[in-house]
Amino acid sequence: MSRLEGVLAPVVTPFREDGTPDVERFVAHCRWLLDNGCRGLAVFGTNSEANSLSVDERLALLDAVVAGGVPAEALMPGTGCCALPDTVRLTQRAVALGCSGVLMLPPFFYKDVTVDGLFRAFSTVIDAVGDDRLRVYLYHIPQVAGVPIGLDLVERLLAAHPEQVAGIKDSSGDWSNTEAVLDAFAASGFDVFVGSEVFLLDNLRRGGKGCITATGNVNPAAINRVFEHADSAEADEYQAAASATRRIVQGYPLIGALKAVIAHWAEDPAWLTVRPPLVELDAGQRSSLIAALEAEGFDMPGLAAFVGP
Amino acid sequence: MSRLEGVLAPVVTPFREDGTPDVERFVAHCRWLLDNGCRGLAVFGTNSEANSLSVDERLALLDAVVAGGVPAEALMPGTGCCALPDTVRLTQRAVALGCSGVLMLPPFFYKDVTVDGLFRAFSTVIDAVGDDRLRVYLYHIPQVAGVPIGLDLVERLLAAHPEQVAGIKDSSGDWSNTEAVLDAFAASGFDVFVGSEVFLLDNLRRGGKGCITATGNVNPAAINRVFEHADSAEADEYQAAASATRRIVQGYPLIGALKAVIAHWAEDPAWLTVRPPLVELDAGQRSSLIAALEAEGFDMPGLAAFVGP
Repeated sequence: MSRLEGVLAPVVTPFREDGTPDVERFVAHCRWLLDNGCRGLAVFGTNSEANSLSVDERLALLDAVVAGGVPAEALMPGTGCCALPDTVRLTQRAVALGCSGVLMLPPFFYKDVTVDGLFRAFSTVIDAVGDDRLRVYLYHIPQVAGVPIGLDLVERLLAAHPEQVAGIKDSSGDWSNTEAVLDAFAASGFDVFVGSEVFLLDNLRRGGKGCITATGNVNPAAINRVFEHADSAEADEYQAAASATRRIVQGYPLIGALKAVIAHWAEDPAWLTVRPPLVELDAGQRSSLIAALEAEGFDMPGLAAFVGP
Repeated sequence: MSRLEGVLAPVVTPFREDGTPDVERFVAHCRWLLDNGCRGLAVFGTNSEANSLSVDERLALLDAVVAGGVPAEALMPGTGCCALPDTVRLTQRAVALGCSGVLMLPPFFYKDVTVDGLFRAFSTVIDAVGDDRLRVYLYHIPQVAGVPIGLDLVERLLAAHPEQVAGIKDSSGDWSNTEAVLDAFAASGFDVFVGSEVFLLDNLRRGGKGCITATGNVNPAAINRVFEHADSAEADEYQAAASATRRIVQGYPLIGALKAVIAHWAEDPAWLTVRPPLVELDAGQRSSLIAALEAEGFDMPGLAAFVGP
């Protein structure tokens, strides 16, 4: 199976009026993303409100996405939970469906845990899943999870599970950490994704594979242009354009902002809904965000008409 | 239904060799605790490794505890998860079984969430459970959850759900915060528990109701002596004794230490096991911990022989 690379979106999760996940809108958005520049879909990421979904809700959504025609090989679902039995269950299903990989948070309730404890946690899951097809991408997002994935942990996991441990998503926003991971492991086939397109070109130039980025939900074509033309004379210009859009969106609470952008260009206010403890953007935030994006010529082409392939 | 007060233990969860929760040892330990000074059991707390258990594992354990003869009115199970459907499911079961209350973490994955978002989260659960018998104790443990429960949130929740919002566990270790909560809400019947017996006497003297403390798992009689004799001339002496034991135990990783103490006095090494990402104490830590406790005359009377009422 070929490895994922390029631009992946942590697909935002729409909700119905009754608060349950909206399978139809979710599948449609997955398809639009793959048609517009995403090479892969990191469903059930941080920006997907995945940890606000029960395991059963996530399993049902994952089944529905694949049943809805999204190729499983494009999927890198998030499967890391606090409770290892939950992580195992989600990971097993992802492998069984043929997903190219899983993006795995460390168990994130306890803080100040040891490298030994985290090594045991990941190893327990990999051993319990027990499938040669499993490819684990470690998810380093210390500012949210509160539990970092350091180089010492990566090294131990790679030594113990060289086939299964496939890469990392570095969402720390700390480029010096990404550099250290790239320099230590990228040459050995460990795939490094940055958590924001702001670092995409830097990452590619140093041996990284792509980005898994919130704004991939709304701006995949412009971000993919950086990836596709990383070796061209226009690369820095494309990077600057993608970064400019990113900076507009991240001036707002990010998940609410992504949903507000989709709601606007899809002409579908149902997209605004988030699950507590998040709150949607208020009307004033939405207007200023949309106005700022329109002022720079932003668009999500075809989104309003999008119902599938 | 009368309100819980006094000493509650967040009951540590034993595991079998295969890593599954050990129902028999768990029920036996619950009974020993109630026979030795605990007025209540905050099963599924932080020290119970509750968030390392799946929802189904917690439901099965809770059913087993009640079926095993532990009075439901002594129980204040932890039910707060990241995903509200999980919190609702656990809370509904607790109410249906007749538990006196539930100890509810805020959804703890997202950080820097708003008071409005947290208010919606707790309100969504209270409304979804929709049962007049529900009594919610808010769980403030910012150093682990990463999501504090501030006075503004308590005030809004009390105004919206005066019957259901029954109290708080303040595990911040910040006595000035406990004082502020006591002064703002205790007179109105909002029950304040501290998260360590070190603050028990101070809490009782200022209008608080008790403590829900890790070391309640091993030292309930000495801590209960503080509670029972809070108005006596010996109160400060009893407090000093309980605090001295606490300080010994908390010199070690706490959950591993509690299990090491139980394993020693129960003469049952099966108790040592923890779930990743935690690790058990090593042999050197165990020896020095047990030696320090023995030096001060610590005991868990009858634990080795304890098999039930």
